[in-house]
Amino acid sequence: MVEHVEFRVDPARYRHWRVTTDGPVATVAMDVDEQGGLVPGYELKLNSYDLGVDIELYDIVQRLRFEHPEVRTVVMTSGKEKIFCAGANIRMLAASSHPWKVNFCKFTNETRNGIEDATANSGQTYLAALNGTASGGGYELALACDHLMLIDDRSSTVSLPELPLLGVLPGTGGLTRVVDKRFVRRDRADYFSTKSEGLGGQKAVQWHLVDEVVPRQRWDDVVAERAAELAATSNRPADAAGIVLTPLGKQRDTDTITYDHVGVTIDRTARTATITVPAPDSDAPADIAAIHEQGAAFWSLAVVRELDDAILDLRTNEIEIGTWVLKTTGDPAKVLAHDALLLAHRDDWLVNEIVHYLKRTLKRLDVTSRSLVALVAPGSAFAGSLLELALAADRSFQLFGVFEDVDPDAEPAAITVGPMNLGPLPMGNGLTRLQTRFWGDDAALAAVEKRRDEPLLAEDAESLGLVTFAPDDIDWDDEVRITVEERGSFSPDALTGLEANYRFAGPETVETKIFGRLTAWQNWIFYRPNASGPDGALRKFGTGQRAEFDRKRV
Amino acid sequence: MVEHVEFRVDPARYRHWRVTTDGPVATVAMDVDEQGGLVPGYELKLNSYDLGVDIELYDIVQRLRFEHPEVRTVVMTSGKEKIFCAGANIRMLAASSHPWKVNFCKFTNETRNGIEDATANSGQTYLAALNGTASGGGYELALACDHLMLIDDRSSTVSLPELPLLGVLPGTGGLTRVVDKRFVRRDRADYFSTKSEGLGGQKAVQWHLVDEVVPRQRWDDVVAERAAELAATSNRPADAAGIVLTPLGKQRDTDTITYDHVGVTIDRTARTATITVPAPDSDAPADIAAIHEQGAAFWSLAVVRELDDAILDLRTNEIEIGTWVLKTTGDPAKVLAHDALLLAHRDDWLVNEIVHYLKRTLKRLDVTSRSLVALVAPGSAFAGSLLELALAADRSFQLFGVFEDVDPDAEPAAITVGPMNLGPLPMGNGLTRLQTRFWGDDAALAAVEKRRDEPLLAEDAESLGLVTFAPDDIDWDDEVRITVEERGSFSPDALTGLEANYRFAGPETVETKIFGRLTAWQNWIFYRPNASGPDGALRKFGTGQRAEFDRKRV
Repeated sequence: MVEHVEFRVDPARYRHWRVTTDGPVATVAMDVDEQGGLVPGYELKLNSYDLGVDIELYDIVQRLRFEHPEVRTVVMTSGKEKIFCAGANIRMLAASSHPWKVNFCKFTNETRNGIEDATANSGQTYLAALNGTASGGGYELALACDHLMLIDDRSSTVSLPELPLLGVLPGTGGLTRVVDKRFVRRDRADYFSTKSEGLGGQKAVQWHLVDEVVPRQRWDDVVAERAAELAATSNRPADAAGIVLTPLGKQRDTDTITYDHVGVTIDRTARTATITVPAPDSDAPADIAAIHEQGAAFWSLAVVRELDDAILDLRTNEIEIGTWVLKTTGDPAKVLAHDALLLAHRDDWLVNEIVHYLKRTLKRLDVTSRSLVALVAPGSAFAGSLLELALAADRSFQLFGVFEDVDPDAEPAAITVGPMNLGPLPMGNGLTRLQTRFWGDDAALAAVEKRRDEPLLAEDAESLGLVTFAPDDIDWDDEVRITVEERGSFSPDALTGLEANYRFAGPETVETKIFGRLTAWQNWIFYRPNASGPDGALRKFGTGQRAEFDRKRV
Repeated sequence: MVEHVEFRVDPARYRHWRVTTDGPVATVAMDVDEQGGLVPGYELKLNSYDLGVDIELYDIVQRLRFEHPEVRTVVMTSGKEKIFCAGANIRMLAASSHPWKVNFCKFTNETRNGIEDATANSGQTYLAALNGTASGGGYELALACDHLMLIDDRSSTVSLPELPLLGVLPGTGGLTRVVDKRFVRRDRADYFSTKSEGLGGQKAVQWHLVDEVVPRQRWDDVVAERAAELAATSNRPADAAGIVLTPLGKQRDTDTITYDHVGVTIDRTARTATITVPAPDSDAPADIAAIHEQGAAFWSLAVVRELDDAILDLRTNEIEIGTWVLKTTGDPAKVLAHDALLLAHRDDWLVNEIVHYLKRTLKRLDVTSRSLVALVAPGSAFAGSLLELALAADRSFQLFGVFEDVDPDAEPAAITVGPMNLGPLPMGNGLTRLQTRFWGDDAALAAVEKRRDEPLLAEDAESLGLVTFAPDDIDWDDEVRITVEERGSFSPDALTGLEANYRFAGPETVETKIFGRLTAWQNWIFYRPNASGPDGALRKFGTGQRAEFDRKRV
């Protein structure tokens, strides 16, 4: 295993992708460096990928949104002949630990959801130009795109060979998107997913697996034509200048991560990480021009980028740190002012990007397999966008009164519900965190909405249902300590299952189905000897030997 | 493990429950015989249950619906002091194999869903009269009831102690029903599920965990009062006579199961079971009175009871038989005539019961972890209610033409969509199997509906999307054989995951969430050493030793 995974990457250092832009059309060509695996021990043949390849892809998707307002269509294609992408590298999977596999799939899923988010919310439509076979995760990557074109060369196909070849599921949304997004009939989907060589040609179109097949000789023209058609439907601005996502300032020590704003402290004995997000130091800029001018330095964006990186770093590198304690500091009014500025300019392309990026980052928290505890104490700034952190938590505490020994004259902690909590930041289930919290209790939700923009002290916040508990100075330390200690004493697996169920009350969507139904089954399958044991299909793949299966159906 | 589990049971042989009826109110008192475990090695203390206890409960729920039209409220309570039910027996769980645990939870879930179905669709409302502590599966049983009353004796509580005590999830719908049915706030649900002693008194009411707490001295009166109130809302008939669910005729040999109608043949080499359901021999009865007269002998009911038993038997006793081949025989017109008679008398209480029982039995197929293949050949009767078998299958084949060598003059196989396929038999996702099949393709669904009542030959059925493939005489044997052989060669785990995803396109409900999200997570957790290993929580429970956990969060 790799020592430490770093998610920050710079386009100058891409090893696996080539990105070119031509006016409104960007082309993202996958051209994986076989020798460029993140971990030693495997070669990334046939455009197969590992976490390192996907970290670059995530960076590409992000930069296209922020740095290229002119881009309206993103053509996802391959830089190799005859192969689009062979999916996740199988030797990497076979050699990986269970948590690594699961975490890898989660991140990969989030990036594909991000591609769909760009299409749906940014006017950047992804077009899969499959100039060769797309198998497994390769086809799943294509499924995240809005329009799928497959070259008709009598050999290229799309396929999901995971079940017949590897004894696992297509774990990056494939099963869900096939029937719930592309509306492939379930029996055809079943057949398709057992046919390792896949399907191509007109049958792939008839079965809704791709949108069109195009002869090789017309390929370039038709791809360009479709890209132009999709670009024409976009609402991206005509003549805006992108901002630069400058390198993130980050100091990573053994037990601390320090960004310009966000800070993380790890307590290895308690197995906790405390993530502290500060409110802005200064007032919100006067106007939208100032946001553009500040660019990546604008607080709302800077803090989200840091939080995003911190989540990914802790998730991947600190898997025994089971509880994350969420804190905020500073002036809540400044948070609300920044929120207000954003919402006043919601039709500005950059503001739109910032708000959706915040949404996606909060969604990462929702699917993070760590217990989340929010602490609302004097000096904290849980208001508006930062209040979402407390609403994402499994449990929250707000101090009733003040810490008499520390600062008897402090302002008691307050939280504030702002407009940012009432719509712009939905969870994967399509509801806001407040709607999910009060699922089935419309009166409680209405009562909270009535108190918007008002700083709510502990007693009010608790009785409105916005925080779980409101202990006073005397009880605070004990209550918080017991929660954190208890959490550390429970089965980590059971906590993951509990949280994955309780965090998603209400409706299900393609996204929640992927992280619920599909991922949960895949977790089990990955863990079973039939896949990962010495005679399991993942380990036997490519050896010429057949896997040995325990034949019991469960 | 037990040699062979039999699901047929007779009220005279109940060991664990006492059922009494008093006009419109039935009381079902759980009074588990400690020595009555289905498998040796554990005592069923504190009204804890195993599969045997739940088999009796299932029988009770069924008989109340068919044998007691006068019953409008079912009071679920305990025959013991101070304890309602302690949930699934932990020593039983600790000693059980993984497939046994999963299968046990599935059946238990289906029975609880059946309780909700009786409340929703039969005018038999279940009232949980918790006259003592309801913990774990005991509380989950209560959660399936419509109204929850908890005795206020300063000690009785409701609790979900699975996570803190056993390192597993409440796996019988608890997590889902707490937030999605009872609308407990997610952070409160989280706290509640970590507090092994549970909650009682007014707090349990405030948190929506129960509907009311009642002092001991008023207990009997208030229970009677609530039972009467619920009974008053029922549409059950005033003066109808129930039918008797006579003992099912069943001959179980090593490789065959023979009922009066349904037959099962097991091929242990191919690991298949062929289930054959015959159409009625005779015409549909002339009127509703005849249905009542025939009672359990009425074809529609008799066949469903047999199919139900066959599914349960195969699921539990034949776990290496991974593929079920579904066949029908006889005159499709007679199936449609029986369907028509039922639908013409949908407001008759008995007909209502038969249709809902058929619905529940088909739902069992949907959640059965076996590959389902339907074969539509000459002489088959896939029409209306029996067509649902083919629609439930993962793949279906309809012979184009006839078997020339067998009977060149045979009528070619046809299938018929009838009114029974267009509404009365929804899946757990709330959609019919046709709606699920054509999810996202309304035109295809409309085209099928237009052809209702018309026998459809293979070519039509295939082009309408009603069957997967329509091979001719020459290809039939090979195509079917390859499908069955392939199915047998794949990883049984991956097949389970694939089928559990593809069978449930479209919306999710409490029911599908239980079988999807919750069950899938529980499968993984059950399988992990943190629960089931030698130092896992399930095995260490009651030893005074703490479980040893792998602390990695996945």
